[in-house]
Amino acid sequence: MTSEPFVVVGGDAAGLSAASKCRREAPDRDVIVFEKGRWISYAHCGQPYFIAGRVEQLTDLLSLSPEEAAERGIDLRRGHEVLSVDPDDQLVRVQDAASGRVFDQPYGDLLIGTGGRATSGPFDVSGLDGVFTLHGLDDAAAIDAYIADPDGYDRSRLGDGPVDAERVEHNRTQPAPQTAAIVGAGYVGVEMAEALADRGLNVHLFQRSSHILPPFGESVADRVEPHLESKGVSVHTAAPVNRLIGDDDGRLRAVETPLGDIDAELAIVGVGIVPNTELVQGTAIEYGPGGAIRTDEYGRTTLPNVFAAGDVATARHAVTGEDVWVPLGLTANRAGRAIGATVAGAPMPVGEVAGTAVLKAFDLECGRCGIIDTEEARAAGFDPVSVTIDAGSRSGYYPGNAKTTVTLVGDRETERLLGGSIVGADRAAIRIDTVATALEADLTVPEVERLDLAYAPPFSPVWDPILVAAKVLAGKL
Amino acid sequence: MTSEPFVVVGGDAAGLSAASKCRREAPDRDVIVFEKGRWISYAHCGQPYFIAGRVEQLTDLLSLSPEEAAERGIDLRRGHEVLSVDPDDQLVRVQDAASGRVFDQPYGDLLIGTGGRATSGPFDVSGLDGVFTLHGLDDAAAIDAYIADPDGYDRSRLGDGPVDAERVEHNRTQPAPQTAAIVGAGYVGVEMAEALADRGLNVHLFQRSSHILPPFGESVADRVEPHLESKGVSVHTAAPVNRLIGDDDGRLRAVETPLGDIDAELAIVGVGIVPNTELVQGTAIEYGPGGAIRTDEYGRTTLPNVFAAGDVATARHAVTGEDVWVPLGLTANRAGRAIGATVAGAPMPVGEVAGTAVLKAFDLECGRCGIIDTEEARAAGFDPVSVTIDAGSRSGYYPGNAKTTVTLVGDRETERLLGGSIVGADRAAIRIDTVATALEADLTVPEVERLDLAYAPPFSPVWDPILVAAKVLAGKL
Repeated sequence: MTSEPFVVVGGDAAGLSAASKCRREAPDRDVIVFEKGRWISYAHCGQPYFIAGRVEQLTDLLSLSPEEAAERGIDLRRGHEVLSVDPDDQLVRVQDAASGRVFDQPYGDLLIGTGGRATSGPFDVSGLDGVFTLHGLDDAAAIDAYIADPDGYDRSRLGDGPVDAERVEHNRTQPAPQTAAIVGAGYVGVEMAEALADRGLNVHLFQRSSHILPPFGESVADRVEPHLESKGVSVHTAAPVNRLIGDDDGRLRAVETPLGDIDAELAIVGVGIVPNTELVQGTAIEYGPGGAIRTDEYGRTTLPNVFAAGDVATARHAVTGEDVWVPLGLTANRAGRAIGATVAGAPMPVGEVAGTAVLKAFDLECGRCGIIDTEEARAAGFDPVSVTIDAGSRSGYYPGNAKTTVTLVGDRETERLLGGSIVGADRAAIRIDTVATALEADLTVPEVERLDLAYAPPFSPVWDPILVAAKVLAGKL
Repeated sequence: MTSEPFVVVGGDAAGLSAASKCRREAPDRDVIVFEKGRWISYAHCGQPYFIAGRVEQLTDLLSLSPEEAAERGIDLRRGHEVLSVDPDDQLVRVQDAASGRVFDQPYGDLLIGTGGRATSGPFDVSGLDGVFTLHGLDDAAAIDAYIADPDGYDRSRLGDGPVDAERVEHNRTQPAPQTAAIVGAGYVGVEMAEALADRGLNVHLFQRSSHILPPFGESVADRVEPHLESKGVSVHTAAPVNRLIGDDDGRLRAVETPLGDIDAELAIVGVGIVPNTELVQGTAIEYGPGGAIRTDEYGRTTLPNVFAAGDVATARHAVTGEDVWVPLGLTANRAGRAIGATVAGAPMPVGEVAGTAVLKAFDLECGRCGIIDTEEARAAGFDPVSVTIDAGSRSGYYPGNAKTTVTLVGDRETERLLGGSIVGADRAAIRIDTVATALEADLTVPEVERLDLAYAPPFSPVWDPILVAAKVLAGKL
């Protein structure tokens, strides 16, 4: 172990998990966390629910306070941006935003946990009032303020965090929008459709490709699309938004689409995120899919003593063993924690990702895991067979039994399970954990078919929907 | 393959699953099912919910009608009891209840799927009105009729099945009970406590040992016991019922317990079941735990061409690899189906059992799987370490987040996961499937800790309760 500190860049899930774990395992090790912003450690995934009004205060989304970080012995420095990394001398160059001072900080181990940022694609989100991406608590606060009636805005919703008050004030004073356009029907797009509908807006959801929620596959989209429509959301697929149209006051007025111009005073642009890798530009660090920093099973980059974790880093896929970039919350927390243990002298693998994701869309619950796209499976060298079945969520005679649609994909040659998706109204999402566990364990489809899963009339039929799908798939392999 | 038929004894889950699968895989094979009673293929686990009034009609619990069985080409003979098996000549001796005729039926393959029957322990359940076991639709109908007010009984609840009308009539005319005693707080006892409370009765639940629900372990009982009390059920642990006390009319009046005599006009005796093995007495067949018929991985008994499945048969435990007797619904269905495939010429293992069980107790959901009792783990040669944690069911800021208690047990030497339990009010039970899958795949605790499980604020916190428990357990191994 080195006498130089463990330096962490980024005070969010990966960074603070690593810092906390390292301090717990090696209480004598100095740990410095540089965070360029004001916020630390917040729940990205909770933002739509704050905007929906289900979460009372913005600060409810904070998972660790600066005071708690200090109690853990972490030297947390907010408002400090790491500009560059010098891997030869093991230094980072840091700028303190308050004073403007730039200084070099030596590191023994370095973790890059700089996360990602929302891309706005071809759209200029800063040019018009009413146009937002959603990636950070200041975005969430601004959107919430913009939606509110200028006279009815409740400032107590912000809590007492370091919110960008000027931006809130600017948006608060805008007239309340009636209609919203959501550009991109990925997770955030669908969650925001529900949130904005909950807030009483007319919502249009635009997706460039032929189905919403591409990572979940068609069998999920086929149920979610009409469900969104039934809740008053207008779903437009194969409908790219070409342009955002402003009025004379610099406020969004409409979006230009193949269906014509559709009036909207609010737009959420959710077309993806990109990893924040600027600080390692000019180094010999290697990149992987999505331009994320390539890491090995312990989260090590190709630079000595430099780790990366979270939305800025690749991970290993549980099915293919290949490097992938799947920027999700658990991956960041888990990898950060493992790296914290590793730099503290107790090496711990960061774990593989199965691409597990779950989503609420009004009354439907969706889940997906592994490889469910047959093209993608073929590209990974498999001979995929896919089945989709409907099964009950409970015994047929038990009240609340709901149709549950499961897709499973297996490999014809090895009979291995490759992935699956699920959608239904009753305890559907969490059942994807069975698939995630099976993928991690490399189970074959016949092995999944024989799993001893839970059965009781209020929760599951004798043959759980996953088992029904596995039975049918096993018969086709 | 033989030209003699596949003969199945018992027309319930195991037997009819086997018969159906065999006919599907080998449509030319003759399949005869002998069922000694009038009912076939019904949902045992649904009976408490019929009594509770959540299931409208008794016949809603039927999963396959005689007509449907005939459509599948199954020669189903109800009212036919198989008296004995002659393994040397490959014959069964059968008695037709209607005519009294006894005849020999040759078999090519034989499946014993005779199930189990409720034991009444030291109690004479037939001696007093108001005393019941619950193992079959006639029991369910009788209990339901007994509870009803004589003037208010709704006969349409029976549906149009072959119910024992005389028994229903006898119970229907009894005065409605006010207070019920449930003897034995296993699954059926707890489910019946809820059902009878739903029907407005004062319910006393008696358990001989120090906690209810012994298979679920103390951490589950510690939450379910006060929850039952909060719902008005009086829970008496370390309180064996010594005697059932009748009045002069031959009707239950009270139960004698260490707490004194407690008035009750209804008693449900749920002290266990025993396998129905009478028909193989006198043969050289081998028995396993619980007096059930020992079977191998394909459901074969020690007699040639004789299989056994369901509540009458042993199965192999996923953790210990030992023969166990775990009479549950999925096990029966799954083993029956596999044996049907095997006798049709496409051998299929019956699968292991992990002892997965889930249970609803009013607003709480409980699950258990594998080995959670440390004494039992030690007896199986493990060096068990057990942890119990509380975690949220959702993100802390999301409405509906509920405390979820997880116990996990691991082996210190191999780090293998041995079992687990869960209890909570929000999507708790179904999460035990993660444990079941992990056990089947022989995952270690650190491997479970790194599973890529589902995370979205409405369904799960970043660290699923199972992951939280695995983290803590991994730190103790």
